Amino acid sequence: MNHLDLIQACQQEYTEYTEHAFVMQLANGQLNQAAYLHYLKQDFLFLKHYARAYALAIYKAQTLEEMRAPLPSLQALIENETCHHVTYCAQWGLTESDMEAEPEAFGTVAYTRYVLDTGMAGDLTDLYVALAPCAIGYADIGKALISHPETIVEGNPYHSWIELYSGDEFQTGARAGMDRLDTMMAGIDLNSPRGQRLCEIFKTATRMEIAFWQQGLDAAKA
Amino acid sequence: MNHLDLIQACQQEYTEYTEHAFVMQLANGQLNQAAYLHYLKQDFLFLKHYARAYALAIYKAQTLEEMRAPLPSLQALIENETCHHVTYCAQWGLTESDMEAEPEAFGTVAYTRYVLDTGMAGDLTDLYVALAPCAIGYADIGKALISHPETIVEGNPYHSWIELYSGDEFQTGARAGMDRLDTMMAGIDLNSPRGQRLCEIFKTATRMEIAFWQQGLDAAKA
Amino acid sequence: MNHLDLIQACQQEYTEYTEHAFVMQLANGQLNQAAYLHYLKQDFLFLKHYARAYALAIYKAQTLEEMRAPLPSLQALIENETCHHVTYCAQWGLTESDMEAEPEAFGTVAYTRYVLDTGMAGDLTDLYVALAPCAIGYADIGKALISHPETIVEGNPYHSWIELYSGDEFQTGARAGMDRLDTMMAGIDLNSPRGQRLCEIFKTATRMEIAFWQQGLDAAKA
Amino acid sequence: MNHLDLIQACQQEYTEYTEHAFVMQLANGQLNQAAYLHYLKQDFLFLKHYARAYALAIYKAQTLEEMRAPLPSLQALIENETCHHVTYCAQWGLTESDMEAEPEAFGTVAYTRYVLDTGMAGDLTDLYVALAPCAIGYADIGKALISHPETIVEGNPYHSWIELYSGDEFQTGARAGMDRLDTMMAGIDLNSPRGQRLCEIFKTATRMEIAFWQQGLDAAKA
Repeated sequence: MNHLDLIQACQQEYTEYTEHAFVMQLANGQLNQAAYLHYLKQDFLFLKHYARAYALAIYKAQTLEEMRAPLPSLQALIENETCHHVTYCAQWGLTESDMEAEPEAFGTVAYTRYVLDTGMAGDLTDLYVALAPCAIGYADIGKALISHPETIVEGNPYHSWIELYSGDEFQTGARAGMDRLDTMMAGIDLNSPRGQRLCEIFKTATRMEIAFWQQGLDAAKA
Repeated sequence: MNHLDLIQACQQEYTEYTEHAFVMQLANGQLNQAAYLHYLKQDFLFLKHYARAYALAIYKAQTLEEMRAPLPSLQALIENETCHHVTYCAQWGLTESDMEAEPEAFGTVAYTRYVLDTGMAGDLTDLYVALAPCAIGYADIGKALISHPETIVEGNPYHSWIELYSGDEFQTGARAGMDRLDTMMAGIDLNSPRGQRLCEIFKTATRMEIAFWQQGLDAAKA
Repeated sequence: MNHLDLIQACQQEYTEYTEHAFVMQLANGQLNQAAYLHYLKQDFLFLKHYARAYALAIYKAQTLEEMRAPLPSLQALIENETCHHVTYCAQWGLTESDMEAEPEAFGTVAYTRYVLDTGMAGDLTDLYVALAPCAIGYADIGKALISHPETIVEGNPYHSWIELYSGDEFQTGARAGMDRLDTMMAGIDLNSPRGQRLCEIFKTATRMEIAFWQQGLDAAKA
Repeated sequence: MNHLDLIQACQQEYTEYTEHAFVMQLANGQLNQAAYLHYLKQDFLFLKHYARAYALAIYKAQTLEEMRAPLPSLQALIENETCHHVTYCAQWGLTESDMEAEPEAFGTVAYTRYVLDTGMAGDLTDLYVALAPCAIGYADIGKALISHPETIVEGNPYHSWIELYSGDEFQTGARAGMDRLDTMMAGIDLNSPRGQRLCEIFKTATRMEIAFWQQGLDAAKA
């Protein structure tokens, strides 16, 4: 099986995630700013636990090669992405201490801890499958939005977000991750209990992504 | 420090949890049945991960005494409570397969995985503190509701829930858990970084309890 | 694949383990008493970590059925076997405090922590395979020795050890464990990377069993 | 308490470790080459699990600062030290595939898995204390041997080993690690159960270091 099987097994949820109202409003520039700021703050808290999940992947590795694969992501997350995120958020008037003082919202807790616990209880493949909806989904969203008829470029304050995830750097990294995942799953039969379990993990993590978008929209309503 | 310090450090959240609309509607019998059924189904899924957390406590133990303490809870959860839950739910027309087919809601994922990941990343005390809002809170709710002026007994379909958690068996078990927790925290200064961290864990787990009640109410609206 | 494939993939080590000098001297009654006492004390420390491994199996379970399977072993280890061990050891002049004061020998650390770390880093099947040489090996040793031409019954102070492990209770329990393991491994191809990894785990754990016997003999020489 | 308290609480074992026959024979150049080669091969296997332990430290971190601290060590271990080790070993006629084909010896399993399991079951401080005898001890050994009256420079094939661990780079790194550990332990009373537990962890890990040296000497005799 490969990553396309994972998506196909939860096509409805995957579409709900990648075409969520939050996403479409990013594209057309209509997203409520409070929703975006809530998302940015929660994403900062998310990144920390996401880095912990990559560290867990190194702990779970058996070979040096398996240890080397997640290292660049881990390093990027801890050294660059959080700094980058802080710089980007500063443009929106958010300071690092604002973000650190922010309590983790339910959706952030649900998604990050689901990935970590699934990875700890299962093996390295389970962990990578739980991590997959984030990288694959953001790559698909970026690619779709950059050429989407509803996407507004001029005057869209969120267009740089679309550029980031449709950009070569992110797309190449996500592609490399998918290739590694496909290699790991190559020997697994989609219809075996193991294959079905991986589909269930991918689906649940995808549902958590939906909740993550939704909590941004809900925050603006509250 | 002791468990009262944990509560006092998040008094607002603790009150929001123990006096949640879901709880007050259980007391006065006005709770929407769909909300209750959603709660029962999610609680079944919750129990499984709660049992996993007690198993984790045994993994994390250093002495035989520490291993013996959580064993009765673990055994009760796996052998009796899930069966008991199935029997109780049957009265409400829910079968075991209904419950197993139910997807885990976000609040269930958030709460259970927060406890498990906090316990895995921290030590045995962190784990027990993450578990504490459930036992302490349900004991406090049971005690408060059984003699609450707004509680309806006659014709209240939810009164047996109140009887269960106000009953001697649950109250005694919860008290024993609090005593053990107090012993574990006896040497920790509330104002030390360690003490403050434990308060943060208790507060976050309490917030997850609030989300767990809320998702029951929300399910009925959806 | 099944448990016989695991044995066949490390036949030399498995024979070295199940026909170790320590074992043969138990059978003919020639075992140095200091070696046996060292073994008993280390086995007490071993049991604690072995129980932690069964608790880990419950943490790693996905279904209630998977949670129920290791519970009797866990309970027996924590409630009965350690007590039983203490009673048995008392006949040999060892008190519980003697055993608790005993530092863990290298072989005890190596074996128990290998099982726990392999189980934590891998999945539930990896954990059960790491645990397997103990149950399967002791069952095979018990069965072989009870009717072995070199086994002495009269005046052999170690004969009750042989009776314990050749007895119906232990044999039935071990057989049930093997059956569960065979079911778990049924879909795994021996020659796949997954199958080869399981063989490697079983072999390493078997080597740790050899070291565990050897440290008993070495203790008597020191 | 600080790291000196840890050493003082197991002074005898710490001396046995840092002044082990293996170490003194490195200094005077009398070490059997087979013992050294065995040590090099096992050290390669050790490094992998040591890197896993640093990854575990990132998984266990709560703050970005705690995540950043172990990252350079992790990176150095995965990217440089294993390569460096391979290059160094090539001078001794060992290829990377020789090292990968080498079965892990008991002492290697015991030490690495003790650190990993202790760190997983306990908290971040437990993990760093379990890791401490390696960095502190090698720094102390390097410093002691470089100016030791019995140390031979000319014609000593092992002198570059002494140079490595007495060198500024290793000494500075080890000192930074000790400072971080001292900060973590600053609020812990040596005589509290927590303080005594940390001493027990340090002592056990130190005993595993002794076993690691000893297995090198034993390999040469076998």
